Amino acid sequence: MTIYDRILTEDDFIHQDELRYPFEERGLQFGDGIYEVIRVYNGKFYLLKEHVERLYRSAAAVKINVPYTQEEMYDHLKRLLELNKVESDAKVYLQITRGSAPRNHAFPKDTAANLYAYVKDLPRPTDLIAGGVHTITHEDVRWDWCYIKSLNLLPNVMAKQAAEELNCYEAVLHKDGEVTECSSSNVYMVKNGKVYTHPAKKNILHGCVRMRVEAFCDSQNIDFVEESFKVEDLQYADELFLSSSTSEIMPILKVDHLQIGDGNPGAVTRLLQQRYEEEAGISPEASIFSNQKAQ
Amino acid sequence: MTIYDRILTEDDFIHQDELRYPFEERGLQFGDGIYEVIRVYNGKFYLLKEHVERLYRSAAAVKINVPYTQEEMYDHLKRLLELNKVESDAKVYLQITRGSAPRNHAFPKDTAANLYAYVKDLPRPTDLIAGGVHTITHEDVRWDWCYIKSLNLLPNVMAKQAAEELNCYEAVLHKDGEVTECSSSNVYMVKNGKVYTHPAKKNILHGCVRMRVEAFCDSQNIDFVEESFKVEDLQYADELFLSSSTSEIMPILKVDHLQIGDGNPGAVTRLLQQRYEEEAGISPEASIFSNQKAQ
Repeated sequence: MTIYDRILTEDDFIHQDELRYPFEERGLQFGDGIYEVIRVYNGKFYLLKEHVERLYRSAAAVKINVPYTQEEMYDHLKRLLELNKVESDAKVYLQITRGSAPRNHAFPKDTAANLYAYVKDLPRPTDLIAGGVHTITHEDVRWDWCYIKSLNLLPNVMAKQAAEELNCYEAVLHKDGEVTECSSSNVYMVKNGKVYTHPAKKNILHGCVRMRVEAFCDSQNIDFVEESFKVEDLQYADELFLSSSTSEIMPILKVDHLQIGDGNPGAVTRLLQQRYEEEAGISPEASIFSNQKAQ
Repeated sequence: MTIYDRILTEDDFIHQDELRYPFEERGLQFGDGIYEVIRVYNGKFYLLKEHVERLYRSAAAVKINVPYTQEEMYDHLKRLLELNKVESDAKVYLQITRGSAPRNHAFPKDTAANLYAYVKDLPRPTDLIAGGVHTITHEDVRWDWCYIKSLNLLPNVMAKQAAEELNCYEAVLHKDGEVTECSSSNVYMVKNGKVYTHPAKKNILHGCVRMRVEAFCDSQNIDFVEESFKVEDLQYADELFLSSSTSEIMPILKVDHLQIGDGNPGAVTRLLQQRYEEEAGISPEASIFSNQKAQ
């Protein structure tokens, strides 16, 4: 995965080699910032509006002044793809911190936010989307305001690493026994044809793909129930899946040693994946369905 | 407050202008790192061993490989003061991140940690130590592993800022009504001659000065009780104080609109401050006692 060399900053587009951060930077010293990862298919954004709107909500929640208006942000991000002549599947990583200032917890006065956004190639993980993944359970030790997409990601890092060390793709997080989400994705249980997921309260990220999962369910007359479930409920699950901008909608076949359902991606998950591909404009050749990967 | 120009990194001492961080840095993108702030009086470290030992405990907890052995770390930090010819009161800020690598939650392979440590002048806040400070209460929304001194400090930043906006020095954090600590210091209640503070569990920082407060209490035959108290207990407090490496031992005179005790720094707080000054080797001229500031 290479980074395209034109990068958007708070001032202008620059070459990636020019982007360096001073060491007294609030992102670096406090994780005092917010971010988004936005999906690009065939050189075009998917869910751009949803991501940009969430970015501004996160910024407002932590009182960071975004250096651009929302309209400017759309233009700049589209220009970022143009300048880099992006035509393939990619992702844009966009980060805004409170800025560079002498270290002190309280907000610095008269300090402008630092922003950067870069594009990186990102092929769809079609094997995993088609075949499904294994996961572990992990205690959710994160802060109470996970609806803010902040740079405070150490607990997510630790959970993801714990999964990786057991050759798993994700960690299903639980607090007081209740499943919240995964380390970098939302999680859903299918039972008797209904889709259950943790309500969009302050303690989980309100995923952009999660919003679309809800809409896809609605359009298919599938009940989308915002009701949390427990780790011990997983033994009765018919299907389990996760969603995120980089993982799309991905079947979960195993949680720790527990096989979910019959151990294969389920019908509801497949239906939602189909709706996702349609909406995201995935070409027939790239589809997990047409190339027979999804059984 | 100026930064002395020689800075310690993972490789060597460099000039501060040479220290720049790339944008794909795990400290900057995940807050994936740990830190210490170490007090210097008259060019000499105070509690160096305690800080360095905690640094290695934090590193072990998040599985970061510190680039130096503990012995080397002592030598390098002392050398940092020498190279900069530090003779006054100062602080050393030391940070270690998991390193620079393409963005991915799980640990990168074969990536060395990044380290930097710099010295900054820091006069003692004698007016506040002598006179006391006002505070607010604030919900503790931090993660469950605050015993790790990590770079995930956004909730601390938000709490400190909330205090500052009300012209207060600190925010007394509480979870489910229970006082945990402050946004960047530990907090203690004195009642009937006993000192109460939240037990050193995973959800608070195990402050280096907190360790000394315990020792000072022991030496003065004051009961040091590791038992948490509630916000509503504050109305019955005789004294309240906080501690940290930059705030030392500081009387709290007010929490929100509640006056603590008779509204003046209390006798137990003063006794502990005296012990602190003795141990830290504060000169008579610099003492808050000899210059009549502390009544």
